[in-house]
Amino acid sequence: MEKYKVRFYPDNKSVEVAKDTTILSAAISCGVSISSVCGGDGVCGRCKVIVKSGKVTTQPSGVITPEERRQNVYLACLANIHSDLEVEILPESKLELNQELKNIYVQSEEIELKALAPSRKLFKHSPLANKLYLKLSAPTLNDSISDLERLYRKIREVQDLPVMQTGLANIRQLGELLRDSEWKVTVTLGKRNDTVEIVLVEPRDTSGKNFGVCFDIGTTTISGQLVDLNTKKVLGTKATYNKQASFGSDVISRIIYARNDEGLEKLHSAVTETINHIIKELAQEHNVDLNNVTCIVSTGNTTMIHLLLRIDPTYIRRDPYVPTANFLPVIRASEAGININPRGLLSCVPGVASYVGGDTTSGVLSSALYKEKDLSILIDIGTNGEIALGNQDFLVSCAASAGPAFEGSGVTCGMRASSGAIQKVKISPKDLKVTYTTIGLTKPRGICGSGYIDLLAELLASGVIDKSGKIKLENNNRVRTTDSGREFIVAFKEETDGPLDIVISEADIENLKRAKAAIYSATSILVKHMNFNFSDVKKIFIAGGFGTYLDMESAIRIGLLPDLERKRFFFIGNSALAGAREILLSVDAQKTAEEIARKITYFELSVDSGYMDEYMAALFFPHTDLNKFPSLKG
Amino acid sequence: MEKYKVRFYPDNKSVEVAKDTTILSAAISCGVSISSVCGGDGVCGRCKVIVKSGKVTTQPSGVITPEERRQNVYLACLANIHSDLEVEILPESKLELNQELKNIYVQSEEIELKALAPSRKLFKHSPLANKLYLKLSAPTLNDSISDLERLYRKIREVQDLPVMQTGLANIRQLGELLRDSEWKVTVTLGKRNDTVEIVLVEPRDTSGKNFGVCFDIGTTTISGQLVDLNTKKVLGTKATYNKQASFGSDVISRIIYARNDEGLEKLHSAVTETINHIIKELAQEHNVDLNNVTCIVSTGNTTMIHLLLRIDPTYIRRDPYVPTANFLPVIRASEAGININPRGLLSCVPGVASYVGGDTTSGVLSSALYKEKDLSILIDIGTNGEIALGNQDFLVSCAASAGPAFEGSGVTCGMRASSGAIQKVKISPKDLKVTYTTIGLTKPRGICGSGYIDLLAELLASGVIDKSGKIKLENNNRVRTTDSGREFIVAFKEETDGPLDIVISEADIENLKRAKAAIYSATSILVKHMNFNFSDVKKIFIAGGFGTYLDMESAIRIGLLPDLERKRFFFIGNSALAGAREILLSVDAQKTAEEIARKITYFELSVDSGYMDEYMAALFFPHTDLNKFPSLKG
Repeated sequence: MEKYKVRFYPDNKSVEVAKDTTILSAAISCGVSISSVCGGDGVCGRCKVIVKSGKVTTQPSGVITPEERRQNVYLACLANIHSDLEVEILPESKLELNQELKNIYVQSEEIELKALAPSRKLFKHSPLANKLYLKLSAPTLNDSISDLERLYRKIREVQDLPVMQTGLANIRQLGELLRDSEWKVTVTLGKRNDTVEIVLVEPRDTSGKNFGVCFDIGTTTISGQLVDLNTKKVLGTKATYNKQASFGSDVISRIIYARNDEGLEKLHSAVTETINHIIKELAQEHNVDLNNVTCIVSTGNTTMIHLLLRIDPTYIRRDPYVPTANFLPVIRASEAGININPRGLLSCVPGVASYVGGDTTSGVLSSALYKEKDLSILIDIGTNGEIALGNQDFLVSCAASAGPAFEGSGVTCGMRASSGAIQKVKISPKDLKVTYTTIGLTKPRGICGSGYIDLLAELLASGVIDKSGKIKLENNNRVRTTDSGREFIVAFKEETDGPLDIVISEADIENLKRAKAAIYSATSILVKHMNFNFSDVKKIFIAGGFGTYLDMESAIRIGLLPDLERKRFFFIGNSALAGAREILLSVDAQKTAEEIARKITYFELSVDSGYMDEYMAALFFPHTDLNKFPSLKG
Repeated sequence: MEKYKVRFYPDNKSVEVAKDTTILSAAISCGVSISSVCGGDGVCGRCKVIVKSGKVTTQPSGVITPEERRQNVYLACLANIHSDLEVEILPESKLELNQELKNIYVQSEEIELKALAPSRKLFKHSPLANKLYLKLSAPTLNDSISDLERLYRKIREVQDLPVMQTGLANIRQLGELLRDSEWKVTVTLGKRNDTVEIVLVEPRDTSGKNFGVCFDIGTTTISGQLVDLNTKKVLGTKATYNKQASFGSDVISRIIYARNDEGLEKLHSAVTETINHIIKELAQEHNVDLNNVTCIVSTGNTTMIHLLLRIDPTYIRRDPYVPTANFLPVIRASEAGININPRGLLSCVPGVASYVGGDTTSGVLSSALYKEKDLSILIDIGTNGEIALGNQDFLVSCAASAGPAFEGSGVTCGMRASSGAIQKVKISPKDLKVTYTTIGLTKPRGICGSGYIDLLAELLASGVIDKSGKIKLENNNRVRTTDSGREFIVAFKEETDGPLDIVISEADIENLKRAKAAIYSATSILVKHMNFNFSDVKKIFIAGGFGTYLDMESAIRIGLLPDLERKRFFFIGNSALAGAREILLSVDAQKTAEEIARKITYFELSVDSGYMDEYMAALFFPHTDLNKFPSLKG
């Protein structure tokens, strides 16, 4: 069989593969990361590469523009290798790992705390795993209880713990350890359901070093924090794309992929690799020994939690949409392949239903929605948008399949809210001059969610697009027509960090419109379903991975959010992650999360007869019925 | 290096070894079992072999008689190989595994039940692991709780279980299993401390097949029973020597051996191999699939339980004699290397102190001593004799290091209470003719504990020995003098199954006298310590692995047991095993065992100033002070 050598740039890695292998497969086999959110079906258009030399064959694809074709741009998943090749991966196609988002999250956390301070009561500090330094009395003939009972007795002098358990591994080393350390040891006590486990027994005093991590496992983005469990201080935060993105962009395509041979195993490995990578980086940066990381709390949608624990998610998408478990037992993190202390614990935030997961529970927890006197709503904008409505008396929630557009996926020049992403846009109505700000103030590499929201609002205001999202203007220096419709140039290639203009196409606008319509109409239907009007809603908490910046005015102007008094809106950043951190730091928060998950009623949108009409009506900017957006009239 | 070939008979196995290897090492390396209770120190005299051809060198040994030396009998542990050899292993030196004791135990159980019936209340039937067949309702859009919660809900319809837990392994298979089995499954619920665990979920109805095993792990003998957990019926019982015997005959020598390189591992493997062998045989004989054996309860002395769980026993024998744990958590049996269902549970009966273990607890449980109104005593005659005194108000216990003589170990012709063992003896005072009965009514191969007790009583009655145990008679057809003193021929070699006469030597008598003195004096001191007299003790429960037969009259005549009204004595067989079975069958029995273990006060004999005097006074048959044995006067 003929073999060809393929070299990838800018990685400068090469590999020999058989004829007809796809460029995507070749890249995977030599460790070069290429984004592929549809799992290689040629529909997402994320795996674009430039073939610099050599011969490939490909199928026709609507996502490659004629301009791109002229520049030898191909979809890596559809391009079959027919000679030695030199391939350049476009910046927007690189699967980014480990983008530092620390500053962004620290800032969003400040926003959150400021916004929520009045309604919040802090939970008592009692982390999932805590360390106790104990000086035991040595045994004598008159006090000859066994080593284990001696340890229990001492612990009970400090804490009232009726039920304690200990693994055999700890008991096996106990006799020698107690004596070698002259009866001075540190025990790590972990909360496991209604019992307390002696997780670790270590010689001497190590109680000063006790760390935990919390994670929000999103379909597209995974965010993690390293926390000092003694001081409650957040040492660092990181976010990166979920490596599972190579296997499909949304939960449904992942669930389908899991049915493949070893599909579940691959999805499981992808998420744990992503998590382990973040933990390792955080630990290294903050000089923390992984053995002193004693626990992890994970939140995420139900499918993500199933995949984290390597539980088959198949039945989540089969009528009647039942997950295997919403409440998971606390297990050893190593059972899920997570690299912290080998005996460290993993707790997953309880979920509500197949499409309303632990991320909603932890968002309701951290926003304190469950304690509000007035009717309030939490809108978590993600690939799966989750909306929770309620107050201290009731909680109801639904999910809207928005797709990953607001996370910068599935749109021509979309990217995650990381360095180089256009996040703020102004367009001059006079000359259509575009002014933008990027994250990190570098040259632009693409557009992130908050950038798209601003961009759409500005395209509307400047008359570039009409209410249906069509580009009204004839071709000019910013507008051009391609085989697949018109597109607007946001940044010319000369301004950018790559070889191509940064554009927004009519297809992108359609995609974003559908995402905003999904979220708006779900919110609207949920409010109606409970016999309220939007005006009854006193607080609107907006959550999501938008980084530092989300312009509420723009979000209202495009009809993503309802048109209410601006002071009712609170942008609270990643509320799911914040809730996971609270659970990491307090067993009371854990108990409250369980109560919240039990209290939330799940409302299945698709069974509401009005949903489709509402959705169709929202497929305009801002809406077909302008009476719903009074402040935008005129 | 020179190599020699050694062939063993009757196994007819051979091996090549280097010059100067011991015969014992050669035997071990080709899988031939030779008993060695001192661990190869040349002191126990159990590893006797006949060198039929070839040359060996050896050190002088007091345990080889001149007669034996003439017959080329050597200690395998001291004999170094200097040529090709042919070696015959003497019947009494074969390490016996898997001797069927079924009939014996069934009979002793009858004795027990009959004797104890009045004071016993049966525990409620609720085995350590029970199976429930459940027909779940399939989920619908209106009843879409998760699979795991659906399972919990159904279980709670049947049983009130506030706290349940489930391992990830079960959750991972749950979705598919429930649907493949059309929502009809059998769950195995296991009691783990104060929670209940879903141990197994199996498709369809397997609830009819649920079995457990219980074990008494003695220093010398291991006994096990297979029990139908649904019907409480004992399907079979087996006993065999503890394979650990190769590493030393008592707990002290095992604890010392555990300090060797891999010593702990070897001792652990030896005990689990013995247990697994018994389980396998029982399961095969009763056509039980090992996957349907869902739990095991083990009792035994504290050292045996440590070794079973591979916990370092070192500190048991170091001042102040503290075990690592008396109360062990319920674990998965596979964690201890036990081959039942891989997720099956292992529960160890809680112990009291370093030298009073779970066997005492389970003996007190099954004898119902803890419920007696009147003062009662339990004497468990084993390598470590354990004595418990008390009633419903108090319990106190001590241990007497009796050695393995009454289990047929460490005495010239001793053997376990198995086929071929002389268990009943009569000696005609006129002509010293010996009449005996063997277990299985076969030719005699040796003498077991109850045989020795009868034999000593008859030797006394017929005037062969005096009160100090010396053989009074001059040499005759039954009595002869060897280098190491006189011996009495119980069975001439023509009557036996081996090449040698079956004898009892003055050294054996001394050994047995020390054993009986240890138990009698411990019992006596314990009674005195609590300010009672023997006459205050209304019931005396005698336990131990004596098989079907123990002659109380003989035991009193030699001064092993106190001289009280005969009707106060109850021979209850293996009470430790019976207690383990009760715990296997009832969680209430388990709770009672925990209460008993906490209630028993441990009395350390060695700190009692009167113990040594009492022991010395008991080194006569029956005692130096005949006033203590009024019925034997005259």
